[in-house]
Amino acid sequence: MKTWVLNAHPTGAVGSDTFKLVETATPAVGNDQILVRVIYLSMDPYLRGRIAATANDAFRINPGALVLGRGVGEVVESNLEEFVVGDFVAGELGWCELAAVSSGDIQKIEPSLAPIQSWLSFLGSPGRTAYFGLLDLGAAKSGDTVVVSAASGAVGQMVGQIAKIHDCRAVAVASSDDKLAWCKEIGYDAGVNYRTSRDLSAALGAVCPDGVDVFFDNTAGPIHDAVMDNIAPDARIIICGTISLSDKYGQPDIGPRYLRQILGNRLRVQGFQISQFYDRFPEAAEKISNWYRDGKIKFREDIAEGFENVPAAYNRLLTSANFGKQLVRVSDDTSIL
Amino acid sequence: MKTWVLNAHPTGAVGSDTFKLVETATPAVGNDQILVRVIYLSMDPYLRGRIAATANDAFRINPGALVLGRGVGEVVESNLEEFVVGDFVAGELGWCELAAVSSGDIQKIEPSLAPIQSWLSFLGSPGRTAYFGLLDLGAAKSGDTVVVSAASGAVGQMVGQIAKIHDCRAVAVASSDDKLAWCKEIGYDAGVNYRTSRDLSAALGAVCPDGVDVFFDNTAGPIHDAVMDNIAPDARIIICGTISLSDKYGQPDIGPRYLRQILGNRLRVQGFQISQFYDRFPEAAEKISNWYRDGKIKFREDIAEGFENVPAAYNRLLTSANFGKQLVRVSDDTSIL
Repeated sequence: MKTWVLNAHPTGAVGSDTFKLVETATPAVGNDQILVRVIYLSMDPYLRGRIAATANDAFRINPGALVLGRGVGEVVESNLEEFVVGDFVAGELGWCELAAVSSGDIQKIEPSLAPIQSWLSFLGSPGRTAYFGLLDLGAAKSGDTVVVSAASGAVGQMVGQIAKIHDCRAVAVASSDDKLAWCKEIGYDAGVNYRTSRDLSAALGAVCPDGVDVFFDNTAGPIHDAVMDNIAPDARIIICGTISLSDKYGQPDIGPRYLRQILGNRLRVQGFQISQFYDRFPEAAEKISNWYRDGKIKFREDIAEGFENVPAAYNRLLTSANFGKQLVRVSDDTSIL
Repeated sequence: MKTWVLNAHPTGAVGSDTFKLVETATPAVGNDQILVRVIYLSMDPYLRGRIAATANDAFRINPGALVLGRGVGEVVESNLEEFVVGDFVAGELGWCELAAVSSGDIQKIEPSLAPIQSWLSFLGSPGRTAYFGLLDLGAAKSGDTVVVSAASGAVGQMVGQIAKIHDCRAVAVASSDDKLAWCKEIGYDAGVNYRTSRDLSAALGAVCPDGVDVFFDNTAGPIHDAVMDNIAPDARIIICGTISLSDKYGQPDIGPRYLRQILGNRLRVQGFQISQFYDRFPEAAEKISNWYRDGKIKFREDIAEGFENVPAAYNRLLTSANFGKQLVRVSDDTSIL
């Protein structure tokens, strides 16, 4: 079978020499494991931090190691009572064609509820991230203006829709007019194209006349600055991603700081990782699947084809070339009858 | 009587032309007012924001207007039932010798409990600021390492002592070894002199080997950066003051930003103003006065003499020349028998 391993920690942009395709033997399946044929792989921004040379030891993926990543697949061999061949599972599988995994790394999924890749997006980590980030850390409430960067991405689509379900005004920031049109289609009230706006701060001000109460930031960088220029008193700023800094690992991020604004406007800037809400994952799953069942969730995916194309799909994500949740279908989706 | 009015919004440092001494008639005392002879004036960093040309309209002190500021004084005339001549009061009096004030702007104080100027420091706004900032926003708990900038200042002295009462490890950052010696005397476990440390980040790392769990920031600027270099996962950063930026109103504060660290370490950066805790002021007053009664609070003041010297005393604060809470005694303290 084939796997993608890290070839070298990237310095600057991720390139063709960052990953390496290798042939390996099918992994041995331990007594407490199952073997999974990988169907979809999820392309996620957080991977960029893990392949950086400057990542923490416990967190860093080193050259020669399997590239980690979430996926969904089908059980093809099982040494665990709770899984049988033909079950579909989601979880940490890695960039490989076949994964031997333990029960702690995966969950069984029910294909009759939603397409199986949904557990990599709105029913999975991006959905939970939007839910807890917006409602718990962001404390979004009726009437709030919520601005979302990377608004058509996996997390951003969900933040906008959950904001609308809670009677907020949702404003999208995205990299193209096509993406903004999709954002409107799923409920966003307004949007700003950060690539074509000459004065991003003024453009945001025009669509947020009462200021920004909740800023769900997936990008950092110049979009962060433009939103901070329009921030309202007592606003909550959720730092969920810093993808605009992807090529700058190991370098300081120099620019305007906002401590005076944070003080004067009593702002709260909060970084988070979804694992801190682990105990409440069932709550998010129930809410989101109910909204989905009730037709309140639309979701767009950008699906690349073929295991060979995984690094290219990953680069689409890093360069904002993707439109919707970036996935790769690496083998047949046998959940579709 | 004499009053200090704003002469011109300062551009850069506050100078001899920023304030102007004027002679005015004794103010008329309204039917719902008292006349107060000002005894102590409090020099507070937040005034710098209010005399800036860039301050919000509602907040800005304009040229020709009385300079606002808290003080304590003695009632010399009263049209209010609850105050009699000879009572001592604390509150918003302004930079003047005699103030006509309404009951909403002041509180009666009890000189037998503590020296009357204590209501401008540990029994007043700085004490409350330390209490709610450290315990509510900072969520300081036993075993936490708490770093405090401007640690020998009015707020900083209280933060360190409240941290010790709650079994934290308290680390002071101050501008002189004398100030650090005082910080140790009141309970701080360690300290760093930011003026003589060649590598402030390394110096802080040496006294915070397990990282910084709570950062109570009164200064912003390079001290903020050095603490952020040593921040622990899940740390709370309380933005209480930005005095190092005092000469930079209207200019952006350019430097390293910490969004990647905020994300990766799940940090919370929170700006606050004490007014948001108004409903809970009695709780802080009770706790702090009990600690004071039990001998757990030491407090150092830096008292300048004479109404003419108010601007000079204010500049001592802005340049860190003060050692302890900066006050000005503008008339005899008749509470001392």
